[in-house]
Amino acid sequence: MRMYDLIEKKKHGGELTRDEIFSMITSYTKEEIPDYQMSAFLMAVCFQGMTDREIFDLTEAMATSGDTVDLSAFGDRSVDKHSTGGVGDKTTLIVAPIVAAAGGMVAKMTGRGLGHTGGTADKLESFPGFEVSLSPDQFVSQVQSCGVAVVGQSADLAPADKKLYALRDVTATVDSIPLIASSIMSKKLAAGTRSIVLDVKCGSGAFMRDAEQAEILANMMVRIGESHRRNTAAIISNMDIPLGHAIGNALEIKEAIDVLQGKGPEDLRTVCLALASLMISLSCGLEQAEAEKRAAQTLESGAAYEKFCQWIELQGGDATYAKNPALFGDAKYRQDVLAAQDGYILSCNAEMIGTASAILGAGRQTKESTIDPLAGIVLHKKPSDAIKRGDVIATLYTERKEMLSDAERMVTDAIRYSEAPVEKQPILYKIIR
Amino acid sequence: MRMYDLIEKKKHGGELTRDEIFSMITSYTKEEIPDYQMSAFLMAVCFQGMTDREIFDLTEAMATSGDTVDLSAFGDRSVDKHSTGGVGDKTTLIVAPIVAAAGGMVAKMTGRGLGHTGGTADKLESFPGFEVSLSPDQFVSQVQSCGVAVVGQSADLAPADKKLYALRDVTATVDSIPLIASSIMSKKLAAGTRSIVLDVKCGSGAFMRDAEQAEILANMMVRIGESHRRNTAAIISNMDIPLGHAIGNALEIKEAIDVLQGKGPEDLRTVCLALASLMISLSCGLEQAEAEKRAAQTLESGAAYEKFCQWIELQGGDATYAKNPALFGDAKYRQDVLAAQDGYILSCNAEMIGTASAILGAGRQTKESTIDPLAGIVLHKKPSDAIKRGDVIATLYTERKEMLSDAERMVTDAIRYSEAPVEKQPILYKIIR
Repeated sequence: MRMYDLIEKKKHGGELTRDEIFSMITSYTKEEIPDYQMSAFLMAVCFQGMTDREIFDLTEAMATSGDTVDLSAFGDRSVDKHSTGGVGDKTTLIVAPIVAAAGGMVAKMTGRGLGHTGGTADKLESFPGFEVSLSPDQFVSQVQSCGVAVVGQSADLAPADKKLYALRDVTATVDSIPLIASSIMSKKLAAGTRSIVLDVKCGSGAFMRDAEQAEILANMMVRIGESHRRNTAAIISNMDIPLGHAIGNALEIKEAIDVLQGKGPEDLRTVCLALASLMISLSCGLEQAEAEKRAAQTLESGAAYEKFCQWIELQGGDATYAKNPALFGDAKYRQDVLAAQDGYILSCNAEMIGTASAILGAGRQTKESTIDPLAGIVLHKKPSDAIKRGDVIATLYTERKEMLSDAERMVTDAIRYSEAPVEKQPILYKIIR
Repeated sequence: MRMYDLIEKKKHGGELTRDEIFSMITSYTKEEIPDYQMSAFLMAVCFQGMTDREIFDLTEAMATSGDTVDLSAFGDRSVDKHSTGGVGDKTTLIVAPIVAAAGGMVAKMTGRGLGHTGGTADKLESFPGFEVSLSPDQFVSQVQSCGVAVVGQSADLAPADKKLYALRDVTATVDSIPLIASSIMSKKLAAGTRSIVLDVKCGSGAFMRDAEQAEILANMMVRIGESHRRNTAAIISNMDIPLGHAIGNALEIKEAIDVLQGKGPEDLRTVCLALASLMISLSCGLEQAEAEKRAAQTLESGAAYEKFCQWIELQGGDATYAKNPALFGDAKYRQDVLAAQDGYILSCNAEMIGTASAILGAGRQTKESTIDPLAGIVLHKKPSDAIKRGDVIATLYTERKEMLSDAERMVTDAIRYSEAPVEKQPILYKIIR
């Protein structure tokens, strides 16, 4: 196999064989194929696409390029959840204990936040002592005993994907649905769960801006999962506006606890129950209706909240914070953002809110940045809410006073008003299973 | 300017500004842009193309990336000719002295042969003592005194094009007409002649297989030349079959001398007169009809042949060979290829004949290969010729006896027969000026 021929073939719209794909990915991981050939190939894929068969093979080749996690101890019960990334997305914190309380085995690897979206590991580390670096044995044994464990992604998980993603990131070849789908699914396959539930976000704060593209991506990922004999399902959810009210690490933990206590915002609760019931259905082999009932029960009964506290404690976190979130305290500086006019909130650009939260200290600009757990934003008003000029529509929290004015301007710019009443956007667009 | 943004822009079909193109080419030449970004950009160009304005700017940016030749001493008279490469293409050897004898100033830079096509420098070096390494002063002074000089391409001529071409060659991004046209024309602009005549070859032995694409390329190169205020014209000529009968360095020199002596094959003579008259017209400012007359006259009168002998001598070659081509002698081994049946020659694949000639020793497999001046092929029959089984249709010449059987098989495979008479293909498809 010569890489030149594979570039040429893809450039002319041809289909690579399974052997060609495996050999290409193996050689690239071993640095036997130079980046300048791979980037030309990736650009050709952006224009010509890939067949399902090519995508399945590419995903498998990347998934098996490094370590894979052995979760066979859990039989068919192991389940993972993946979100394509959004602003204020604290669903894992709520969904994982619901599913664990219902009898599923949530074995989740997670990454860190970058740019305008946060990462689950960062949020969990708001608990003093919480540890995401578990050994494989600790990870499996905690899933066994508690039904849920979240671990930082192993350095050698799907190294081919890591190398390819870094190259795509600097060659403007990120936005190809076959490449996005295979990248996500290669990590999910390597992470070893029998069932996978995907939350494909769609809108201004998401990678997928348009619902049609989001649906194509979701369907493709479900097909990839099924082709590798994983039970796979997906939801497509609205990320035109932030999910819930809180953006920022400890702020989101507090909102997650609200939901686990039977309170919290309706949109967040809806997405969490949709995800949790799919996970329960796949993991426990229940009919969807039965799984939905089970998810709601564990939430109402407090079993999920109890499971949450147990989970935090098992991973070294101070569970008194989970029981009394007031212990987290508040950031040193806070500032209210006021409504500019009477009327209704028309829209609230999720990416801009996410970026504002990041510059307040809740997110990373580069991989090396540190995070302020208490920094972030609470939105008191969201689209369709009626407002009067001067109402507090958001509050900013930060340890860095000098960032308040930039963040305030950004939040102000992110929000659009309407004089006429505004219809509420749906939060769930579609469920695919 | 971030290279990422330029890739992204081109990928989505956008037009780069002049500043963006110059800054990209300058940075790439200085190795400030990595190959993996440039190859992604080049692949995007293969799919999205470039506007004329982008192509003009790209050509200029590459042309001015290194040395440029100053031919202002010749006013409007300096003229160059470029062929996109073919098999048996010895036109420069004939055209240059015709034009010089008619009063044009032929200042030509030339490359070496690679693969199945030969290079003019290699052919000229069949003359013992011939020197293509002239200093800029020697080059200009010979054009001044003789009207023609051919020099090997300066190492620092259009270095951006050299670097880009090397990258395209390994990333399957060669076959983009904007990239081909700007690559050729950047070297022609840097080489400094006021007039440029292009011979775009089309067919099985040429880079352009299809006449429509060849015409698009020719027109684009003419537009590039005109946009930089060079008088530019082009012909599109048939390279489905080798040009003339001889393929191989000294063999082609002998055939060129035949034409200069008023003999030689019709197809070769036709192409040479077309090229020469365009060059004379542009260089001497004559009407086309007048230039055609002048070209034919210098050939008939023997003035072109005389100019040829003077030229060879001035560049250190042994001119007794030019006067008595029998001095070249014959290769050590020769073998005839016989017609397999009665009938007519239908076709003669130029690329296969060129490759057969190269393995006999006339061409290079790699840049380091040495060349046997006497090796090559003479075709006695060409498409539309009537043949009888057992007729000699070609003769192979080599110093490497062991290559004869492979070459014979290749030549046999290259030739197709017909029982019915075959119509002769035209040699000139189009003249663009």
